[in-house]
This record gives sequence, structure tokens and C-alpha cells, in this order.
Amino acid sequence: MKEEYFIKNIKSKHIGDDAAVIGNEVMASDSFFEDIHFKKEWMSLKDIAIKASLVNISDIIVMNAKPKYALLNIGFPKSYTLHDIKELTEGFNYCAEKYNYEIIGGDTIKNDKLAISMTFIGECKKPVFRKAKINEYVAYTGDLGDVKKELNMLLRGGKISKKSKFIRPRLRDKFFYKAAPFITSALDISDGLFKELERISKISKLGYKFFYKIDKRIGCSGEEYEVLFTFNKKYLPKILNIAKLTKTKVTIFALTKRGSYKSKCRENHF
Amino acid sequence: MKEEYFIKNIKSKHIGDDAAVIGNEVMASDSFFEDIHFKKEWMSLKDIAIKASLVNISDIIVMNAKPKYALLNIGFPKSYTLHDIKELTEGFNYCAEKYNYEIIGGDTIKNDKLAISMTFIGECKKPVFRKAKINEYVAYTGDLGDVKKELNMLLRGGKISKKSKFIRPRLRDKFFYKAAPFITSALDISDGLFKELERISKISKLGYKFFYKIDKRIGCSGEEYEVLFTFNKKYLPKILNIAKLTKTKVTIFALTKRGSYKSKCRENHF
Repeated sequence: MKEEYFIKNIKSKHIGDDAAVIGNEVMASDSFFEDIHFKKEWMSLKDIAIKASLVNISDIIVMNAKPKYALLNIGFPKSYTLHDIKELTEGFNYCAEKYNYEIIGGDTIKNDKLAISMTFIGECKKPVFRKAKINEYVAYTGDLGDVKKELNMLLRGGKISKKSKFIRPRLRDKFFYKAAPFITSALDISDGLFKELERISKISKLGYKFFYKIDKRIGCSGEEYEVLFTFNKKYLPKILNIAKLTKTKVTIFALTKRGSYKSKCRENHF
Repeated sequence: MKEEYFIKNIKSKHIGDDAAVIGNEVMASDSFFEDIHFKKEWMSLKDIAIKASLVNISDIIVMNAKPKYALLNIGFPKSYTLHDIKELTEGFNYCAEKYNYEIIGGDTIKNDKLAISMTFIGECKKPVFRKAKINEYVAYTGDLGDVKKELNMLLRGGKISKKSKFIRPRLRDKFFYKAAPFITSALDISDGLFKELERISKISKLGYKFFYKIDKRIGCSGEEYEVLFTFNKKYLPKILNIAKLTKTKVTIFALTKRGSYKSKCRENHF
């Protein structure tokens, strides 16, 4: 609410998408803070650096752009050992190599907690925005719901697998880049399916006709980093074919229609 | 020291300047955190937003670039009122209008303290780097030393004028853009004159022949955001003329020479 007030008061026509598009460049920026987005007991420092990178790369991918450059602002406690710092840099370098971009700047400061903000610049010929049309299929990649379970487990003091999606989001770049020419609107599911549906609804001024009821356990699970997207019905064979080709599960669950839509999930920051 | 280890371990050829240059774009990113860079009793929220912006714009200017776009990552406490948030946005918008750039993205999160990270993208035809040549004049703009005094006053619980340079850095854009064609190397004085001289020394592999002894009160005063620069002797009349034209005090205090140079200031984060 206050966050929205802040954003509304910043005078800019570009704010509001996953990333801003300027010419053929796409820019996105996201923070990843200790005790806001993660607790340090939950993940290794390398995993933290990787997730801080992936949540940004995800924004770039769903705009149909490729990450080219990143700027990294990091604050960490004095108490960190050189080994700790090495672990962090290994995580940042791992992602930069895997996704083929370069970390070109930023700054490092001392802070009482680990605080990471990254800005990515991506290159893109034909960006995909968040604006859907009426009478399109609505779909998401992968399975939703596990991250909410994993997060609850962590909040209760339990342990989760290092391969869990909460620790290591699985980005859908292979599917998305191929499917993008047939996709009308897309965003990544960072705040839960229902919240992202609300975002598309607001921007596109439309509602949804659901094919079946989606449980809150699925619709309110945040930080999934799966892709929510809409597409013209005629591209159904294309989409399904690309899903098969790239071994990506795609769940088609609604049609866009006239109307509006509001999420009923509670805000899920811990 | 640990910060340097971090930076050395990030694989990039661009890190190390005020800003990274890619094509005709310049990118810089800096954080401005409560209790690291400022205490909230010291300045209004509007002043904080303005300073967080200016320290970044300063990096862009000394590369001889004009700011075009900014991404803003901000974390603030739940307890902030809508009035607080309005003050912050007024500060950000003030700078965006004054320096003619657009805030195109970023994110807002809840955090226990105010934490601002900004990334600026600037446009530039002929960037100025940090690499000086031998036998050049070394100079800085304005007066140095006041910010250290102001900071000490604040740390002792005293008050300083709202017009003091600690609260409102005075950027030298008018002088610098005109003088840039005659300048070999430049950077802004964020960590103190001596520390910035060390940076030029390391990158350019040279030392300095000082014309007179510079007191630590001047040489170790950080956050001045004046410009340190070197230039070919033959451009002395040009530089002095532009200084006069733009009403900018310029102090020429050394010549670059073979050798090396190390700052003797203590690190000055409080």
C-alpha cells in the first residue's frame, strides 16, 4: 500500500512493468535483503548470491530480453570472512557465466545485514509486456504451490532440500524465448499467481473466466518464478509444441474476458 | 579491504571506474543507507532522497556524461507515514527534474531502516576516465575540508546548516562539461582527496610532486563531491578561463610524475 503510494508519486511513464524498455534495451532492478527476503540460516551465501541474481534475470527473461550487463550493490557485515566473501562472489560469477552477462559496476558497503540490490540491462528485439487482450488463453509454466510449503517449513524452523525452488528458482528461458513470438503478455510469478493475474487485469482492464477453481495453496504461493502468460487461441498448437520441445509443463487454466479481477491473498512477506 | 577482495573476485573488466562505459552509455550505481551514510536525525527525508540521487549523478558527471535514466531500489520501515513517503518522492523527483533524467524502474520493499540504492544510465560522447599522464597539472574544484568538520559536528550531536555541503553536495556539472575536452582524467572526491589521488595513482601508475603540503583536514575529508582532475599543461589558460566563466574555484596543487602514491587517511565511515 505504502509501496504503491511511493511508486505512484514517482513521475515516470515507464514504471510498472517487470522491466523498463528504452530503445532495444530492457532494464530491471530488484533488492534481496536479509530478514526481508531470506534468513541467513536458510541458504548458503553462494545460494543467496545466485537467488539474488536469478530473481532479476527472471524479470529480464519474461520481457523476452537477454541479460547483457549487471550492476551490483552489496552491503555485508564486518564479521564476514574472506571465505564468506568468496562464496558470495562465486554465486554472482556462476550466474554471470551461465546467463552470459557481465557485472560492470556497483558498490560495496559495510552493513549490519546482507543487503543486495542488482540492476540488469538486457537486450531485446521484441519485448513482451504485461498487456493481455480479451478472449486469450491464460497459462503458467511448471507447478505452483511448493514454494509456499517450503517457506512455511523454513519459518517453522524446518529444513528444505537445496534443490527446492525456494532456494534455486528454475527459470523458463528456453521455453520463453521460443514461445515469445506467440505470447501477448507475460510476467514472472514473484508475488503469487493471483497477485500477478491482478496486475495483468489492471493494466489490460480485463477479467478471467477460470476453467476450474484454483486453490489458495497454489494461487497465493509467491517467489515461484514460473511464467504467467496469455496468448491468442490460434497459437495453442505452437505453444504446446514448444512446451513439449523444451520439456516445460504448461497449465492453461483460464480465458481473459471483459471485467476485472482482484487477488484475495494476504501479503506474504515474513 | 574486504570490499576490495569482493570487487577483485567479480570477473569483470569494467569495474573500477566511477561508472562503466558501454558504447555511448555510462552506468553507475551507489547505495545510500541509514546509519552507514547518514543518520536520520541529521537530514529531512527530502534531503536524504536528494543526496542519494546527487552522489550518483556526481559519478555520471565526472565521466562527462549526462544522466538519462535511473532505477531506484528503496527499502523503508513500516512506520513511515504517507507524508514521509511524499517527502522522499519529492526529493527524487526534484533531482530528476533538475538534471533532466527519468526514473524508469526499481523496487520498493519494507526494511527496518531506510536503504536506497540507485543505478543511473547516462549518455556520453567522449567519456573521461581515471587514467592520468605524466607531467600533468593536478587540480580540484571548490574548497575541501568543510564536510569533515560538518560530519564531526553531527557525530558530536551538533547541528549544521541545511545548506552545508554534507547535506547538499554541490555538483560541478557546468564547469566540468565545458572543461572536459581539456581534461585527461577525473573523479569525484567521495572518499577524500588523498584516497582519490591514490586511485588515479594506481590506475595510471604514477606519483605526484606536490607544490605545497596539504593538511589532513583537507586531504582526508570525504563526501566532498568536488572534482579531482588532471590536465595537460598547455590547457592551463583554457581551464582557468572556464573556471572563471562558470564561477568555479579551481586549485592546482601538484604535477603528476613517475612513482606511486598512497593515502594515509583512516577509513572514514562512522
